[in-house]
Amino acid sequence: MIKIVAENYIKEEHQKEFLKLTKELIILSREEAGNISYHLYQDIQDPSHYTFVEEWQNQEAIDLHNQTKHFTTIVPQIKSFTSKPSRAVKYKEVQ
Amino acid sequence: MIKIVAENYIKEEHQKEFLKLTKELIILSREEAGNISYHLYQDIQDPSHYTFVEEWQNQEAIDLHNQTKHFTTIVPQIKSFTSKPSRAVKYKEVQ
Repeated sequence: MIKIVAENYIKEEHQKEFLKLTKELIILSREEAGNISYHLYQDIQDPSHYTFVEEWQNQEAIDLHNQTKHFTTIVPQIKSFTSKPSRAVKYKEVQ
Repeated sequence: MIKIVAENYIKEEHQKEFLKLTKELIILSREEAGNISYHLYQDIQDPSHYTFVEEWQNQEAIDLHNQTKHFTTIVPQIKSFTSKPSRAVKYKEVQ
């Protein structure tokens, strides 16, 4: 299992559109065979700070996800809404 | 539910001790009534980068956790092992 924690800072004027697009992204990503879970969280202290926490079966599942239509069309739109650099970290479970 | 993502960068010479202490911290934290889940992950690209992903029922559960003996004794030791500033973010679930 690989866990991804992907952080984005969304400009206030784009938050509504961001939430609409992420809803679609999340529904379609959860339907992928290699996905274990896919959730979106909002920072309690900084409402512009949104973080995806995703679990994938393996790197192959992530590679396939990155090639899907929903990823290649929605993620660039999300990036265009950001106010500062995004950050994504891939993790393996320790305990 | 509140999700905490807490990142620590651990000096190489302290990794063994860090993993021993976190094992204890995780076991005892999972036993707390207000805890939903408590896991530790390691960055695949940077093995010194460890991140706790925790789920708590509410802020009261986090306040109680922060007062437990395992938290007040183990967390300062973990902080003494770090090579750069730690970071913790509290999130609410969006979708």
